[in-house]
Amino acid sequence: MPGWVGGVLEEFPSYRTEEDKMRLAIRLARENVQSASGGPFGAAVFQQPGNRLVAVGVNRVERLNNSILHAEIMALMLAEKKLKSYTLSAPGFPDCELITSCEPCAMCLGAVLWSGVDRIVCGAGREDAAGLGFDEGPVFPESYRYLEDSGIEIVRGVLADEARAVFDLYRKRNGLVYNR
Amino acid sequence: MPGWVGGVLEEFPSYRTEEDKMRLAIRLARENVQSASGGPFGAAVFQQPGNRLVAVGVNRVERLNNSILHAEIMALMLAEKKLKSYTLSAPGFPDCELITSCEPCAMCLGAVLWSGVDRIVCGAGREDAAGLGFDEGPVFPESYRYLEDSGIEIVRGVLADEARAVFDLYRKRNGLVYNR
Repeated sequence: MPGWVGGVLEEFPSYRTEEDKMRLAIRLARENVQSASGGPFGAAVFQQPGNRLVAVGVNRVERLNNSILHAEIMALMLAEKKLKSYTLSAPGFPDCELITSCEPCAMCLGAVLWSGVDRIVCGAGREDAAGLGFDEGPVFPESYRYLEDSGIEIVRGVLADEARAVFDLYRKRNGLVYNR
Repeated sequence: MPGWVGGVLEEFPSYRTEEDKMRLAIRLARENVQSASGGPFGAAVFQQPGNRLVAVGVNRVERLNNSILHAEIMALMLAEKKLKSYTLSAPGFPDCELITSCEPCAMCLGAVLWSGVDRIVCGAGREDAAGLGFDEGPVFPESYRYLEDSGIEIVRGVLADEARAVFDLYRKRNGLVYNR
């Protein structure tokens, strides 16, 4: 993760609402653009009881030469590392949620299923990422339904305008849009 | 990657056919089970011209406490690291292919799109993984079509019996089947 993350976390002494948590994800996305450390995407994993932050992630694809390192993947991997478990729904673990500044691409949507999170909260939409030029891949309404049928709650459009504003900033800065 | 990988690679001095490459992926999957270093899945990235091996991967989810580390993800990340590029289709790069002992889950299918590989060759089928108890997630016929429409060639069922035999071995050894 980039060196600036600690400073951003200090801006958020506590989290009470869904919007508080989304503000963090969007702030991470924005700082990632401003610091030129990656794409315009941020994410965080919380334990729902107590609104406890477990881990955060930002897009690191370009800077680390690794197409897998989307913000959601980073946050999930770091959360599992912190909790020393390959699943965030291990016995005795409180419910976990993934907050992401943008609806997940096909890879990250699949990763959500394996990670064991119980809830995913999204800011900007797939169409916003597409508008910026990012191809989110084979995600269909049935894909979300599959997750819901597996017991995962999905919330979309939280602080979507603020999340989209980060895309506008990325566009203005001529940020790299990589696709196949 | 587990310490035994170098030894397995020595068993394969060269690769000429698709089956040769699949034999490597299946051998990695089998050794991963026999050495109890992870799930029954193996993968490899080749540059098609010259059939040059770039990187290999095996499932490391349980042992590294990381739900993202499927065989395909490992192989793609290590290939990008080796070539120092976040895409395997960077200008000047020869065509790359991903060989995997089993059809990819939703996460890995999405990862294929971002990775820049031009071709994916699969051994066992989604239904074989499901038979073992693994939930491959929201993968639909349209998902494969999406990849094909993006210019990715998809080949399935190469040495499928040999790939399935690794699942049988995993079952006999009571290997961990993790799901949401």
